[in-house]
Amino acid sequence: MNTQALLHISESPYASLVSEKDFCLRLRLASEDKGLSVYAHFGGKYPFPTSREKIPMALAYLDSEFAYFEAIIPVKDKRLAYVFEIVENGQSHFFTEKGLTDHYDFACSYKDFFQFPYLHQIDVPSLPSWLEGAFFYQIFPDRFKLGDKGKDLSYVNLDWGGAPTPQSFAGGDLEGIRERLPYLASLGVNALYLTPIFLSPSYHKYDIVDYLKIDPQLGDEKTLKRLIDDAHKAGIRLVLDAVFNHLSSQSLFFQDAVKNGRKSPYWDWFFVHGDHIDLNKPNYEYFSVCPYMPKLNPDSSTCAAYLKKVALHYLDLGIDGWRLDVADEVSHEFWRDFRKAIKSAYPEALILGEHWHNPHAFLKGDEFDGVMNYPLTYALESYLASKNSNARHCASEINRIFANIRPSQIQGNLNLLDSHDTFRFYTLCKENIDLLECALAALVFMPGCPGIYYGTEIPLPGNFDPDSRRCFPLDGEKPTAHSELLRNLIAIHTKQISHLRKFRCQEIEGLLRIERSEGGQGLELYINATDHPIQLKGDDHLLAHRYESNHIQPNGFLIRRLQK
Amino acid sequence: MNTQALLHISESPYASLVSEKDFCLRLRLASEDKGLSVYAHFGGKYPFPTSREKIPMALAYLDSEFAYFEAIIPVKDKRLAYVFEIVENGQSHFFTEKGLTDHYDFACSYKDFFQFPYLHQIDVPSLPSWLEGAFFYQIFPDRFKLGDKGKDLSYVNLDWGGAPTPQSFAGGDLEGIRERLPYLASLGVNALYLTPIFLSPSYHKYDIVDYLKIDPQLGDEKTLKRLIDDAHKAGIRLVLDAVFNHLSSQSLFFQDAVKNGRKSPYWDWFFVHGDHIDLNKPNYEYFSVCPYMPKLNPDSSTCAAYLKKVALHYLDLGIDGWRLDVADEVSHEFWRDFRKAIKSAYPEALILGEHWHNPHAFLKGDEFDGVMNYPLTYALESYLASKNSNARHCASEINRIFANIRPSQIQGNLNLLDSHDTFRFYTLCKENIDLLECALAALVFMPGCPGIYYGTEIPLPGNFDPDSRRCFPLDGEKPTAHSELLRNLIAIHTKQISHLRKFRCQEIEGLLRIERSEGGQGLELYINATDHPIQLKGDDHLLAHRYESNHIQPNGFLIRRLQK
Repeated sequence: MNTQALLHISESPYASLVSEKDFCLRLRLASEDKGLSVYAHFGGKYPFPTSREKIPMALAYLDSEFAYFEAIIPVKDKRLAYVFEIVENGQSHFFTEKGLTDHYDFACSYKDFFQFPYLHQIDVPSLPSWLEGAFFYQIFPDRFKLGDKGKDLSYVNLDWGGAPTPQSFAGGDLEGIRERLPYLASLGVNALYLTPIFLSPSYHKYDIVDYLKIDPQLGDEKTLKRLIDDAHKAGIRLVLDAVFNHLSSQSLFFQDAVKNGRKSPYWDWFFVHGDHIDLNKPNYEYFSVCPYMPKLNPDSSTCAAYLKKVALHYLDLGIDGWRLDVADEVSHEFWRDFRKAIKSAYPEALILGEHWHNPHAFLKGDEFDGVMNYPLTYALESYLASKNSNARHCASEINRIFANIRPSQIQGNLNLLDSHDTFRFYTLCKENIDLLECALAALVFMPGCPGIYYGTEIPLPGNFDPDSRRCFPLDGEKPTAHSELLRNLIAIHTKQISHLRKFRCQEIEGLLRIERSEGGQGLELYINATDHPIQLKGDDHLLAHRYESNHIQPNGFLIRRLQK
Repeated sequence: MNTQALLHISESPYASLVSEKDFCLRLRLASEDKGLSVYAHFGGKYPFPTSREKIPMALAYLDSEFAYFEAIIPVKDKRLAYVFEIVENGQSHFFTEKGLTDHYDFACSYKDFFQFPYLHQIDVPSLPSWLEGAFFYQIFPDRFKLGDKGKDLSYVNLDWGGAPTPQSFAGGDLEGIRERLPYLASLGVNALYLTPIFLSPSYHKYDIVDYLKIDPQLGDEKTLKRLIDDAHKAGIRLVLDAVFNHLSSQSLFFQDAVKNGRKSPYWDWFFVHGDHIDLNKPNYEYFSVCPYMPKLNPDSSTCAAYLKKVALHYLDLGIDGWRLDVADEVSHEFWRDFRKAIKSAYPEALILGEHWHNPHAFLKGDEFDGVMNYPLTYALESYLASKNSNARHCASEINRIFANIRPSQIQGNLNLLDSHDTFRFYTLCKENIDLLECALAALVFMPGCPGIYYGTEIPLPGNFDPDSRRCFPLDGEKPTAHSELLRNLIAIHTKQISHLRKFRCQEIEGLLRIERSEGGQGLELYINATDHPIQLKGDDHLLAHRYESNHIQPNGFLIRRLQK
């Protein structure tokens, strides 16, 4: 056994509540020790030295370095104590807070057992129930469809379908989205995420001037309300984009601080180094390298109150949640407070953070429901687009990602291939549609909520911003073989996969195999990203792409019921 | 290199702020890889792919399994990105969020660098400045000294010095403590921690009936105020015990809930399973196995407000902080809120949690300043009292403890050999005073605040509660060789060690060596817990015990200035 590979951390993804009744324990071993027998001894903290239970732990995730064992234990006592036992060659070893020992005296275990000191109500996971079976569709409103032809169109400077620049306005709006709801419903998506729609000088609207006003280019509150209502009638949820890290330097709040300095009631909404704001030599903090986006200080109580008011205002109007822009640069303090404000009024509202890195610090259950799962995006990109990795490596990366998220938080994540902030996956695949389709198949098998970026069903190509934000073609709704395949994949996810708890991802004979199942029933996916056909008998397959004479062809996949 | 031993966790003790200007990075390697060269590449998150700095990391802690490398980096950008480089046999390896790679393209580092997304003011450590140089003395008030001879003594049922039972009242009080302040000052201690002093039916007073009333057995607010004032005059801080996890079933709050059920304004202060409280078959949550101590629900807003009011009331009176009883079973939510309330009014007030296990979840900077460091207690017990370990093993345990605490939080911990909740260390040593003295020497060299339990200077023996709570002898102030040695050790800690940042703990030729230094200057301690003399030249020693003819005798120690 590689004893130095052993890892367990209390109050972390390795020890967390799944529900009020179930607790999940994980223990990490070296990958080469995956064959060892692992057990958890658990019980109430006070009786533990004299009385406890023992449960075997199962291998749940395997990456290139580590094997992650998992057990779900019942919560019978709100104060939990536990230690691990690893059996190698018939010899037991015990792993506790003190490390690994060959002998263990449970009578003294109070000195070094791991513990979850007390199960508080706030520790009980509370994700929106509608996330199970949700499939997202992300829309960049200016580029999806121009619906309101009666509006003042003088701001439009891009012919629909032309190549966008960082200053292009194409004219898409909320009414356009509403008009396409039947189409979206027919595709099978049941949740929309719109990039920002509030008053802003830019086409992308991440520099907001007034959060309580819909940008007239896109519509108004009535249009939004109509969109919400019609979406709900069509069984579609609507999530908006909350840009709370920063706003536009043109906002009245910032302008007031510029004008009145420390006397401004908004002075503490910003991080200013000095006694007045210098616009020429920006002496305030701002987003990235953009002085036109001064950073907000949500630890200012009035700023926090305003942002919560904004969030609740649109929830009152009927939206189903918020995607949080640059969420990792806003304080935990604020997000905890934000969650309480939102969830106490709207327990079913989604709180989805933008986070490109290891999001563990925000996914403890008291901040976000989940994040945009970009590490998964990268893993699929390497495997299928750049082909820098292979099935074994991809499975390893995917296992590592999910092994390090609390099980209760996994469903809250948005799994995506691309977004307005990336290259389009199709373009990264050099427009090889088969590879995009393999990636989409993988996506629908992942635990969490899959989502696609508008136009993936065409598929639209697109380099990095602004090219990734092209207009949705006027005839884009027309069914094609690709859109039909996608429709099938979406249906498989929402109707047959989403509720299945067990996830297994591995390499088998060069194929990437992903299983979703429960009680031995479920589906499995095989992807072949090699350059040669690989044999796999699958006569009873549910869906296949590039599958011929019992072989999955290069860049093909097959989905079938789990074989007994 | 054992690649599976590598560990870094963002926003953890491995990546934390030391001050507004300095950030501490730690990387864990296998202990056998301690000779490798380790570097951190760091910079602002946005410029990182094109511009950054590189700094070598030094071996800071070494335990039996792991080598912990550390670097302090300057905070030049509030958004920090970093990756690690490990050089083995001239070959560089890079460690990022994705794991270890042999080649690394910094241009793509935005995909997998580690990050500290944004440095918020709340992340800046804020420990009381007086902790540097503090030396604690814990008092069990009923057993220290009877000062107020005019009070109603009818409750006293233990002759001073008799063997205490769980129902013994000896009559000690606040006035008695006040009378001994000159003695305590002469011993060199400069901070007192008193176990609970509020109205309670028990002698230990951990079951509080009224938090806003001093138990008349011990005194009243005037006596407390006089004690505080005189202590401060003598340069001694006073910390009280906050029992916020539970109270006495005799409290008016609980009695009101018993009487009025769900109509009681205090109903939600408790965790009741049902519509009324059943005292015969306790259907409410309580501390440990003690139904007479119903558990409080500080997530009730009125309960939380009351507890904060209590804490602030005594801070208003002049106390210097709170030790928090059973703090790990109270919610993070409450402690974060508690800290804000306390520190905004009293930034120099100490918040010290009782926590017997790995306290990482409470030591992020937004809850406790520190905890009672019982894992250290156990390490010293094994080494010096039960002799189940040796210098090497003890050094390993000590290194593991401190390597896993944020550097900014280390000073906040109370390092102790024993307390009212343990056997007395002297008794665990089978009353071998030399071993107790070796332990005290080790204690004063540890990073953090050392503290002794009243009577250690005698030393008092004591088995587990109630025997560990014997009366302080009437002639206990009388100087002895032991109390003189302790006095010297206390002075060495407060005047010569406490401010020294560098800590090194290791085994050298069978001795436990502990160094505290800064810039190459400082002190070192050698302890010999073997059964044979060990040679160590130390002519210029500062303090030694059982040191003869250049040899540290068994159960002896030597303190000297760091040798060049």
